[in-house]
Amino acid sequence: MYPKRYGDFMLLSPRRVIQDTNKTISRILQGDLKILKQIGAYVVASGGKRIRPLFTYYLGRAYELDGKELLQLGSLLEIVHAASLLHDDVIDEAEERRSLPTASKLHGNKAAVLAGDHLLSSGLKYLNTMKNPRYMDVFTDAIQALSAAELLQMQHHFDIKTSAVVHARVVDGKTAVLFQAAGALVAIMQGEKDFRRSGTATLGLQFGRFFQLRDDYLDYFDPARLKKKGLQDFTNGIVTRPLLHLLKAAGKPEQAAIKAAWIAGSKHTDLSDQQLVPRLMEKYGIAAQCAAELGDLQRQILSKLAALPGKSAREVITGEFQKILAVRAA
Amino acid sequence: MYPKRYGDFMLLSPRRVIQDTNKTISRILQGDLKILKQIGAYVVASGGKRIRPLFTYYLGRAYELDGKELLQLGSLLEIVHAASLLHDDVIDEAEERRSLPTASKLHGNKAAVLAGDHLLSSGLKYLNTMKNPRYMDVFTDAIQALSAAELLQMQHHFDIKTSAVVHARVVDGKTAVLFQAAGALVAIMQGEKDFRRSGTATLGLQFGRFFQLRDDYLDYFDPARLKKKGLQDFTNGIVTRPLLHLLKAAGKPEQAAIKAAWIAGSKHTDLSDQQLVPRLMEKYGIAAQCAAELGDLQRQILSKLAALPGKSAREVITGEFQKILAVRAA
Repeated sequence: MYPKRYGDFMLLSPRRVIQDTNKTISRILQGDLKILKQIGAYVVASGGKRIRPLFTYYLGRAYELDGKELLQLGSLLEIVHAASLLHDDVIDEAEERRSLPTASKLHGNKAAVLAGDHLLSSGLKYLNTMKNPRYMDVFTDAIQALSAAELLQMQHHFDIKTSAVVHARVVDGKTAVLFQAAGALVAIMQGEKDFRRSGTATLGLQFGRFFQLRDDYLDYFDPARLKKKGLQDFTNGIVTRPLLHLLKAAGKPEQAAIKAAWIAGSKHTDLSDQQLVPRLMEKYGIAAQCAAELGDLQRQILSKLAALPGKSAREVITGEFQKILAVRAA
Repeated sequence: MYPKRYGDFMLLSPRRVIQDTNKTISRILQGDLKILKQIGAYVVASGGKRIRPLFTYYLGRAYELDGKELLQLGSLLEIVHAASLLHDDVIDEAEERRSLPTASKLHGNKAAVLAGDHLLSSGLKYLNTMKNPRYMDVFTDAIQALSAAELLQMQHHFDIKTSAVVHARVVDGKTAVLFQAAGALVAIMQGEKDFRRSGTATLGLQFGRFFQLRDDYLDYFDPARLKKKGLQDFTNGIVTRPLLHLLKAAGKPEQAAIKAAWIAGSKHTDLSDQQLVPRLMEKYGIAAQCAAELGDLQRQILSKLAALPGKSAREVITGEFQKILAVRAA
């Protein structure tokens, strides 16, 4: 389906990239403890779309960079991501993540915290064997940004006055950062000195933002695509773009009603009016507003993808990610 | 009290080393989030004896190594240690650690997990700026060993059949590893290639073992010195040397009684006979047995300390650590 060769180099299919990523992750997480095997199996099994490794691989291959190195780096980004999910599962007492049982539910909170620590430390140890201190720069930056953003989000938990600026910092730190890191790693492989502010790092940042904002959009307007029930961000006390728009658009009495529902959520009491928020979103056309924002970002990303040098890799990355970029019109 | 000069170099007093370590830790943990300031303050305030930085500093100064670099490395070891305590607090639902309220109690479990992550990532980021990939080798080894040992301990939680071998692996991985790391870092600073198996790394390993085994001893035989109530390891389901010795020495009916008490602990039911274990420890002279083991290790360590080259640093390290090494005769 995809061309097998790009220039003089082999271009792996997305399926093959995912397979190789899973193998690499298993190799990095080797250990003789039963629980480590279970964690490794869990991370591989719950793998999801491996969007970070796919992004890393095709972006790098578009510049004819070494495929094996790209697969290793993508696997390490995925490990950091998995470690952060494991700690998130503990923290949020999440009952399930994307319909699969969470590690914390399978093995207990204790196991999830330690497993996250072990994932991260195994990943860093492997990264260190790759002998490029700039890679370590990128990963330590990213891991620090991740934890800072999670602390910031926690500080604003159930804070309905969370500003658009704080929200943007959380999105950048929690999600976009690992895509930005992928772009920075590709820049390092190309020998760019200012890899943090390289074109590929910026593309990664935008891509990661889109990825998160799309999830936030779907949570309100098309939760079935996330395989979960909707309005989870609202009931979990997390302010996202749809709510920011709604609070701006709504009249004073409506704002008060939204706040009352928000407070009810923070106290785990049932809302008297389950349909309040969806009805107001509908009334003020918030879905269309968010879709327009996403559309802008999407066009910027697609034009950058279109400017990538390698034709075959560019076609795959664009094709694969158009599936993700696609947002059903509101 | 201590000589101010060693050779051509200044030798800092232990008090000054602790002050400088606290300053360095605060600097490494800088950030604009309120919660980060609280965490930093907590880590500094709950500082305890700063035994890892003291060990690192005086061991390195005995070889005339750069004091500033030693203080930085010691501070980073302390940060890794603090991060592991924060995650341990969450995990064990510990109500208090050494009579100070735990971070998880002050700020919630969520904050403790994220704070631990942030400590670790800030430490690694700082370490990376020190531009010595071998330092990174030592830290990634140590962090991985820490998490593996914690997972191993979890796997044997309330397992009364925990073997002496497993127990030794836990002690080495959970406690000794950071002292071993201090020794390895000193070896790197001396230009030793095989720093992992250097004399200073072995000294660190033994020192760390002693430090943990002494705590385990005091938990049964002199808990007041740990500022906590005794038999916590038994009631928390952790097998240590005293219990290993007792299970070996006790007769069949006594073993059965110990197991019954152990199971009662695992179910959080009160023991019918609070004095059972202390009485049997007394009967079989376990305190003396453990003290003899500790004495052997202590003599090995002291003879290695005595062989350190720098007189002034050697005197301080020996003097400071004799306080810790001292175990009240049973």
